Amino acid sequence: MLVTIGVIGKNEQHENDVVDARTMQAAEDVGRLVAEKGGVVVTGGRFGVMEAASRGAKMADGLTIGILPAMDKSTANDYCDVIFPTGLGRARNLLTARSCDALIMIGGSCGTLNELTIAYAEARPVVILRGSGGWADRIEPVLQKGKFIDERETVEIDFADTAEEAVAKAFERATEENRTAMPDRP
Amino acid sequence: MLVTIGVIGKNEQHENDVVDARTMQAAEDVGRLVAEKGGVVVTGGRFGVMEAASRGAKMADGLTIGILPAMDKSTANDYCDVIFPTGLGRARNLLTARSCDALIMIGGSCGTLNELTIAYAEARPVVILRGSGGWADRIEPVLQKGKFIDERETVEIDFADTAEEAVAKAFERATEENRTAMPDRP
Amino acid sequence: MLVTIGVIGKNEQHENDVVDARTMQAAEDVGRLVAEKGGVVVTGGRFGVMEAASRGAKMADGLTIGILPAMDKSTANDYCDVIFPTGLGRARNLLTARSCDALIMIGGSCGTLNELTIAYAEARPVVILRGSGGWADRIEPVLQKGKFIDERETVEIDFADTAEEAVAKAFERATEENRTAMPDRP
Amino acid sequence: MLVTIGVIGKNEQHENDVVDARTMQAAEDVGRLVAEKGGVVVTGGRFGVMEAASRGAKMADGLTIGILPAMDKSTANDYCDVIFPTGLGRARNLLTARSCDALIMIGGSCGTLNELTIAYAEARPVVILRGSGGWADRIEPVLQKGKFIDERETVEIDFADTAEEAVAKAFERATEENRTAMPDRP
Repeated sequence: MLVTIGVIGKNEQHENDVVDARTMQAAEDVGRLVAEKGGVVVTGGRFGVMEAASRGAKMADGLTIGILPAMDKSTANDYCDVIFPTGLGRARNLLTARSCDALIMIGGSCGTLNELTIAYAEARPVVILRGSGGWADRIEPVLQKGKFIDERETVEIDFADTAEEAVAKAFERATEENRTAMPDRP
Repeated sequence: MLVTIGVIGKNEQHENDVVDARTMQAAEDVGRLVAEKGGVVVTGGRFGVMEAASRGAKMADGLTIGILPAMDKSTANDYCDVIFPTGLGRARNLLTARSCDALIMIGGSCGTLNELTIAYAEARPVVILRGSGGWADRIEPVLQKGKFIDERETVEIDFADTAEEAVAKAFERATEENRTAMPDRP
Repeated sequence: MLVTIGVIGKNEQHENDVVDARTMQAAEDVGRLVAEKGGVVVTGGRFGVMEAASRGAKMADGLTIGILPAMDKSTANDYCDVIFPTGLGRARNLLTARSCDALIMIGGSCGTLNELTIAYAEARPVVILRGSGGWADRIEPVLQKGKFIDERETVEIDFADTAEEAVAKAFERATEENRTAMPDRP
Repeated sequence: MLVTIGVIGKNEQHENDVVDARTMQAAEDVGRLVAEKGGVVVTGGRFGVMEAASRGAKMADGLTIGILPAMDKSTANDYCDVIFPTGLGRARNLLTARSCDALIMIGGSCGTLNELTIAYAEARPVVILRGSGGWADRIEPVLQKGKFIDERETVEIDFADTAEEAVAKAFERATEENRTAMPDRP
């Protein structure tokens, strides 16, 4: 059984809605490092951070899976070995966020924040890369005790300052915590 | 065709995880006012804010719908006229958050923040009741320009200081904006 | 708490894909009779059998709910009081089929057969109107013992020869069986 | 990009609800042959046909993915390289049935019939293994023209008499038809 690491972050929707070069590099590094450790990189199959992480994983000959919103596989980026065209639109976030052993969050617009809330509620470990922009940077000051999304303290959210640290923490959490933390009740 | 107003907010999971009396009163007021204006109150069918809003609506003889996570109708509160036991767990949030003409957010833990992100991404109007605790109070300082979840500016998030104001704004938004705002692309 | 009766059957997709007049009449009768007994008519919100059942219910001043595949309320027929535009595409079948107290199946193409399998697996009672065409007529000869979809015998499927009989059986099943039958394990 | 072949068929729920030895062998053969051709075997991650197909694929050193109903990875069989614990219950069928390039159906109870209807509606090619019991044998006589689930003729359903033929047809359909057939409108 392979370790699955979800990488969540901002999609590039059009030319005026891009992810900056430094964040793209961080995403690529994360993907590469996950692959070097033998992990599967799971993303939403689209562009921006998702594409960069998948490309990084392929540089290290890793396995990549993209869980697409559309039913059309041609909407995926070029670095997904396995593409699941779900046809579920944004509802596919449920899959990416719930079904991995751990998640690494890099930057992030509304969809990434959505995935963070899904992961937390199901007690999935998430490591957020500091300095990557978007919700990755905006969420920390408003967390409870700096690490919980709410007062239920369902699961600790981790932060990391480098791609290396993020991947190391994600693997650590993937193999332990995942089995003990309990989701809240819906 | 009836106007549907979703009321989202914190569930009470057990005796140490309650919603304070003032917020419960605000939720009841919101439910009652929605019903008085002829709107349908749609909630997640559970307790805390959901129950208070539904109870308020029934005080004014309104119609209430509860979209439950479980398959068992007995897990609903006592104030739902129509109960949909979805069996989808937290994935039922997609329904509550996407399918109403407008939403009113009162307090809120992780599940409520999840619903806010779903609504925003689909360009559904949301009015947040200030002073109701939880994410209703924690989100405003970290929004872009005080009203957007991300730089895509998909739809403006409104704030209100009283139940009356929240309901008035929700009805206004329900009938207009809903038809013009465009969701982002997943 | 109101009794919810789902009415499932063929959508009319275009002018060469219609439901015959006799089946439309049966669907309208079913909707009217459900409303006369105080039940809520729940459909997929579209055309053909769904529209006829909703129209029938409105003739008797009943409450009608349409659970739409699209996000756009204008894709609903004209006889839904409450419209839930789910944006889930065909995945919205999960809602219609699982969440009602009982279902009445009238005719039916692939989508209706899909809903029948969802209902059965969750032990929801279904009454099929004989002579209404499509899967309503094609399924009976291939059922196990004439009433089960598989050897697990999760829940009995009922058949009725008239709209009156279908509605009577649906109400009977809605109030009893629903609480005792057990779904199979996925 | 890898070719994904979904294998759908009966789960063994308990000791009195087993899949016969011949069908298990066929499922194992199918899994092995898919892997030998370089395809990824995707299943619902559980037992019976799903386990046999995954085991066959691992005998040929193939890649296997299991899309589980539960949130708990320990509910998967022992032959899944990548496990997605979706927590969606039976709603996970949407993923297995929609997201593969082609499906092979072996035997099957209600859940398998459900997946067949999902695949057909989205114009996904399905090859049914004759003689494997359950719905694989019961569906053919009631199909329209022996190959369509309904009069919309959305996509042709194929039949095969051996594991070899089923796998050959699935690969043929996976690479062609998938891009041209059009789903019906929900």
